[in-house]
Amino acid sequence: MSLSEFKLINKYFKDLTAVQNDVICGIGDDAAIINIPAHKELVVSVDTLVNGVHFLPATDPYDIGFKSLAVNLSDMAAMAAQPRWATLSLTMPDNDAAWLESFSKGFKDLAQQYSVALVGGDLTHGPLTITIQILGLVATGAAIKRSGARPGDAIYVSGCLGAAALALKVLNKEIQGVSTLSASCNRHLLQPVPRIDIGNNLQGIATSAIDISDGLIADLGHILKASSVGAVIELDTVPLCKELNKVTDQDLVWQLSLCSGDDYELCFTVPSSRKDELDSKLSAVDCPISCIGVIQEGSVLRCLLADGSEYDIKAAGYRHF
Amino acid sequence: MSLSEFKLINKYFKDLTAVQNDVICGIGDDAAIINIPAHKELVVSVDTLVNGVHFLPATDPYDIGFKSLAVNLSDMAAMAAQPRWATLSLTMPDNDAAWLESFSKGFKDLAQQYSVALVGGDLTHGPLTITIQILGLVATGAAIKRSGARPGDAIYVSGCLGAAALALKVLNKEIQGVSTLSASCNRHLLQPVPRIDIGNNLQGIATSAIDISDGLIADLGHILKASSVGAVIELDTVPLCKELNKVTDQDLVWQLSLCSGDDYELCFTVPSSRKDELDSKLSAVDCPISCIGVIQEGSVLRCLLADGSEYDIKAAGYRHF
Repeated sequence: MSLSEFKLINKYFKDLTAVQNDVICGIGDDAAIINIPAHKELVVSVDTLVNGVHFLPATDPYDIGFKSLAVNLSDMAAMAAQPRWATLSLTMPDNDAAWLESFSKGFKDLAQQYSVALVGGDLTHGPLTITIQILGLVATGAAIKRSGARPGDAIYVSGCLGAAALALKVLNKEIQGVSTLSASCNRHLLQPVPRIDIGNNLQGIATSAIDISDGLIADLGHILKASSVGAVIELDTVPLCKELNKVTDQDLVWQLSLCSGDDYELCFTVPSSRKDELDSKLSAVDCPISCIGVIQEGSVLRCLLADGSEYDIKAAGYRHF
Repeated sequence: MSLSEFKLINKYFKDLTAVQNDVICGIGDDAAIINIPAHKELVVSVDTLVNGVHFLPATDPYDIGFKSLAVNLSDMAAMAAQPRWATLSLTMPDNDAAWLESFSKGFKDLAQQYSVALVGGDLTHGPLTITIQILGLVATGAAIKRSGARPGDAIYVSGCLGAAALALKVLNKEIQGVSTLSASCNRHLLQPVPRIDIGNNLQGIATSAIDISDGLIADLGHILKASSVGAVIELDTVPLCKELNKVTDQDLVWQLSLCSGDDYELCFTVPSSRKDELDSKLSAVDCPISCIGVIQEGSVLRCLLADGSEYDIKAAGYRHF
């Protein structure tokens, strides 16, 4: 990192770059040095947001800063890990001070909420792109992978689905008859809440977990594939963003809630014998969870309507990659 | 990471994604899980290369893959750390199979040489940008920072300086009378060698170290600032790329060798009483080192010519940021 980079980062991110107990050397050297405590494993993930691909060019830089960290924290939540340190690589067309000020505030507000320290960074010139790598800790052996789901396990999701996809469609004026949404619905798109608290409470209970970034069907599909199992979902138990009732085309409702990205809710599986224990552990967390189905033998994911008939997810525009 | 991403990464990087002893969970889940051994500290750095900024658009993708990892390994070398794991965020305009094949081969050839495992990745669509985060290990307390240089310490650099900057100028046809260079000179620009072996041998001997990415004057300047010291350099002892003798303008020679980027050699300081010990430790390493000056009280960096007169580095186009 050059001195000018260091000055910029220190100016805009200094609240996050303070050397903590376990950060032996933070921003300002060739690399950061971190002390990893005993009996913990390191959990590592990286996510990139590209202007015009992952966010609209007109997006408030505050929201870009917030979301670029949020999607990384969401990966920590899905592993039941506690996020601790982050590096930020920011590529931007010019040193726009107002943009940086707002971006850094969004990043900081979320980072401080979860006590995440910024330990490294790279500022480069080029098309606006943000890459964040998140480092977290989990007790040895306690991380939750995608591969542990077993037949009979109950399938859960946190929060509600479809809000971010609905908000994006409305922003893009792609839904007839729906021109405005509540601030709460838009916030799901712009400032998703990483479900760290839920993830942490799943340790020792959930057999598998994933965060829903590509839509419930695709992401639950990853669990099924990694666990070599199938599943059935009861669609009337899937928690939908309530503003989806403004959408009259039912296939579109399922497209937005089951097949679209950016929900950042958790999908996880729990042995049916432990459902009460789960409810009790999560009673203090300020986010509802819903049981939406069950893991089965096989490799097929079936979606059932309220009348028991099967809904063909292809009708919602789902394509298997 | 979506399944399609996973398939692409597995196809092109599978030799690097095998789960090692200390990688409990590699690519294919929401995050990787790594076991950090006792008595080690984690060393973390990130570097981004942007098309048209950090490499010419016509650059061989093999070289882009090689160099994007090399510049990160160089940061590990400067900390005296052993690189172990990397994440790769690759933003590219389209899924160009031939490009990916070649890029991944360059990345892999270097990663395998240093036993670096790829533990995470993100593939996105957008303008070509590569962000690599490198994770390494160092014995507790053994990392070398920029801040330890003391008056009287000898200043060293590895290898020779100016080759990469000269190669770039010639590629851009910006030097009159020099149209071709040796393959070895071009390799300094396209495939810099991270000085991991030298860095590791500096543990317990060097008082400070940095890798030369922005030019010797700027990077030695970082050491001086972090250590609150000054220095004097004897210019006739600075090891120059021998093809710089094709350049007739002496100010340009100093610009290329002292003030230009991309050398990726190490600059480090050693107490003068330990110079013999240093020579002995580095005798087995296949890269020369040169003593080029001495750390002094104060905060000024002076460059002396062979006749003892001072050379004003501004004449070489150096600007202090």
